[in-house]
Amino acid sequence: MTSETELHGPEIDRGADADFDEDDRLHPDFVRAVLDAVEAGDVEEARARVEPLHPADIADLIELTPAEDRAALASAIADRIDGDVLAEMNDWVRDALVDALEPRQIADIAAELDTDDAVAIIEDLDADDQREVLRALDPDDRAAIEEALSYPEESAGRLMQRELIAVPEHWTVGDVLDYLRADDQLTTDFWEVFVVDPSHRPVGTCELSWILRTPRVVAVTDVMKREQTLIPVDMDQEEVALRFQKYALISAAVVDGGGRLVGMITVDDIVHIISQEAGEDALLLSGAGDGDINEPVRDSYKARVRWLIANLGTALVASTIITQFEGTIAKMVVLAALMPIVAGVGGNAGTQTLAVTVRALATNQLTRSNTLWAVRRELAIALMNGATIAVVIGIAVSLFFANPKLGVVIGTAMLCNILIAGLAGVLVPLTLERLKADPAIASSVFVTMTTDSMGFLVFLGLATASGLVG
Amino acid sequence: MTSETELHGPEIDRGADADFDEDDRLHPDFVRAVLDAVEAGDVEEARARVEPLHPADIADLIELTPAEDRAALASAIADRIDGDVLAEMNDWVRDALVDALEPRQIADIAAELDTDDAVAIIEDLDADDQREVLRALDPDDRAAIEEALSYPEESAGRLMQRELIAVPEHWTVGDVLDYLRADDQLTTDFWEVFVVDPSHRPVGTCELSWILRTPRVVAVTDVMKREQTLIPVDMDQEEVALRFQKYALISAAVVDGGGRLVGMITVDDIVHIISQEAGEDALLLSGAGDGDINEPVRDSYKARVRWLIANLGTALVASTIITQFEGTIAKMVVLAALMPIVAGVGGNAGTQTLAVTVRALATNQLTRSNTLWAVRRELAIALMNGATIAVVIGIAVSLFFANPKLGVVIGTAMLCNILIAGLAGVLVPLTLERLKADPAIASSVFVTMTTDSMGFLVFLGLATASGLVG
Repeated sequence: MTSETELHGPEIDRGADADFDEDDRLHPDFVRAVLDAVEAGDVEEARARVEPLHPADIADLIELTPAEDRAALASAIADRIDGDVLAEMNDWVRDALVDALEPRQIADIAAELDTDDAVAIIEDLDADDQREVLRALDPDDRAAIEEALSYPEESAGRLMQRELIAVPEHWTVGDVLDYLRADDQLTTDFWEVFVVDPSHRPVGTCELSWILRTPRVVAVTDVMKREQTLIPVDMDQEEVALRFQKYALISAAVVDGGGRLVGMITVDDIVHIISQEAGEDALLLSGAGDGDINEPVRDSYKARVRWLIANLGTALVASTIITQFEGTIAKMVVLAALMPIVAGVGGNAGTQTLAVTVRALATNQLTRSNTLWAVRRELAIALMNGATIAVVIGIAVSLFFANPKLGVVIGTAMLCNILIAGLAGVLVPLTLERLKADPAIASSVFVTMTTDSMGFLVFLGLATASGLVG
Repeated sequence: MTSETELHGPEIDRGADADFDEDDRLHPDFVRAVLDAVEAGDVEEARARVEPLHPADIADLIELTPAEDRAALASAIADRIDGDVLAEMNDWVRDALVDALEPRQIADIAAELDTDDAVAIIEDLDADDQREVLRALDPDDRAAIEEALSYPEESAGRLMQRELIAVPEHWTVGDVLDYLRADDQLTTDFWEVFVVDPSHRPVGTCELSWILRTPRVVAVTDVMKREQTLIPVDMDQEEVALRFQKYALISAAVVDGGGRLVGMITVDDIVHIISQEAGEDALLLSGAGDGDINEPVRDSYKARVRWLIANLGTALVASTIITQFEGTIAKMVVLAALMPIVAGVGGNAGTQTLAVTVRALATNQLTRSNTLWAVRRELAIALMNGATIAVVIGIAVSLFFANPKLGVVIGTAMLCNILIAGLAGVLVPLTLERLKADPAIASSVFVTMTTDSMGFLVFLGLATASGLVG
């Protein structure tokens, strides 16, 4: 498997700036022009326009093309759709495109790529296609990819590339330089050199800049940094991403159970994961699943409807609480108009606390060392918010309905529900985390159920108990 | 300003693994042990425990320490709290700590750091302290930091470091190697060398690995990659982060209005921004502001109560709609118990669409080229979701209340409200984006208002119009 970048970097340009919009994405007019050319059968024109684009922009072009026109575009510019383009492409769009290719073609593309990029393409194929692609690869590539596929999905083993530079500890800087110059089979894209002991265990890491700035006679063990962040091959990609962030890593050695160096992960493969993991919390909290706009409609429907049905269930629970107070409402219908305010603002306060807590858990800001402090902090904020909102709504309702007692009841109910919301917003995700469940996934349903039910219960209950209703 | 990493990397260890919990954060027992030592006045013991830690972990230790104990801890281990530790620390915790230092001490710390890290510490000081710190710096450092501070907050100019390697285009690889070896004032942490023309405009970039693997006699212009992603000095950090992601960059040249090289941004400074920008959408959507658990309670209160008051306003609007139907509700009180279901599930469906749309806008997946397609896609999902939920709730209500007409009314209202939710969930953020407002910030309020008001209006309106209420 040779690396995709030639030693003398490609001298392509990014295309004219006029082809890009203010978000640095391809301009709609450019996309339109290419698609018009394809539709008119003018393949030469389409190719000429795509020629100067960076692989990431060709991937963009295909993503921005309506799904039904992608096949025609892809066949027109087939010679430019190489591994680099596929590696940059949205997962869903790539899967659809790869499904249209022959296993032989996929194998040719995979052979050009580093293991991690090849695995990303092959892992999503169905079992039969996967076998055929693997059979079409040469034995070395096949072995590397089969090994990668043996690690769990979303683990370091899937992310890492086998192409790396490892040198023995007795070498000097000069030895390293000679080795790098002499062997042109080596990978060209690396940022650090790993120093290993005779059993291939990493003992240190040298940044290339240190090697460049050190006299040839110095031993690599005197240049290298012994403090290393080693990534176990079965570590979850989210934890890998957090380590890269925490220790500001450019690349890191991946080790097997015996501590032996088996691969390397580089930061450019991690930035996508950092963005994805950080962004998915908003989607999970809302119950929108993956939330990728390129996901097929049926998959999005399935992901979302599950949560709507769960939400329907919690709404029914809240609804049965209201039915217990039908007598009260019948005597004073305005309570029906006011009760959604108590439930709704409480729900919003709960969602705020929930979003903060889930984010703090995801970034490892909230740990067992500061849990108690964080709960106290959220309660303090809830008390301040609750008091403020209670006073505002209490005064407004007192004046508007000329009924101070109604104002006191709604104000008190609001304060209680915002406190309950604060407590639920921090305790529900903490409990789920303790139970090893993803706090972003199911928390919303529990918190909304709590704030809805408690909002109705406290408000209607107080209205009944206080003698407000005749 | 010399770089903080010595040429011969520091040989410190990360501390014993037993000191870390399953999230790779310091173990509560470890934190407790250090704090106990500080409290007991056993400074030696505290220092001995902190000694083997990585700067990022010392930053963690201070973050995990309750706010009231931080000053005592900081003074006990003052000699280990250097620029690296401050650079890794949470903004709020760092500000509080820096506020306790003398300007002279801050200047000493800033002088050790690369410009970007020094700026991060100095930019948050109040104007008087900032002036004093700048005065205490030596003239070169002062000029570099003053220049950085002249760029807008959150722009490339604040993020970049001035420490970089730039070489003229007529040099050979050998010239570059000799230059790097000869001048020990140069920065040691760099991953690429920038090639510039006589007016200091970047013409190409060389990865260090290419330089290492090329014979000395080759011209740098034959090794370098001419295709470069140049970052304008006033570009917003979010756009910078997206470029790093899109083009898988390790470092990038920053240029001024005249296209001249003025600095370099490296990916390790970007990963924090990618994570922050991607994670903040969940917080903004919920109206939780920055949502950092280290933010002072008063600031969190102020950020959140604004949105609760906005939410209160929208709830009042929905409430006035209900009051229009008081006559209907008085005749059939069960409508009061059912109406929150229509509003609530609609709200949830709207939030799902909203989260997906905001994420797609933030990652530049949704552009003018595919807006229409995305709206159609969301409506298709809303139709499927709406039909499913309508059938479920319609049948349940028909059977439970033995009233098929009530089932049809609530089913129809639910379908309508989920369609409205889908439309609002995609159009509200798109409109805000078109108006150059951040779609994550105010969308929730508009969408919730729509789904609440329309939910009540359609359900109670249908109940009245259909003759359901006798």
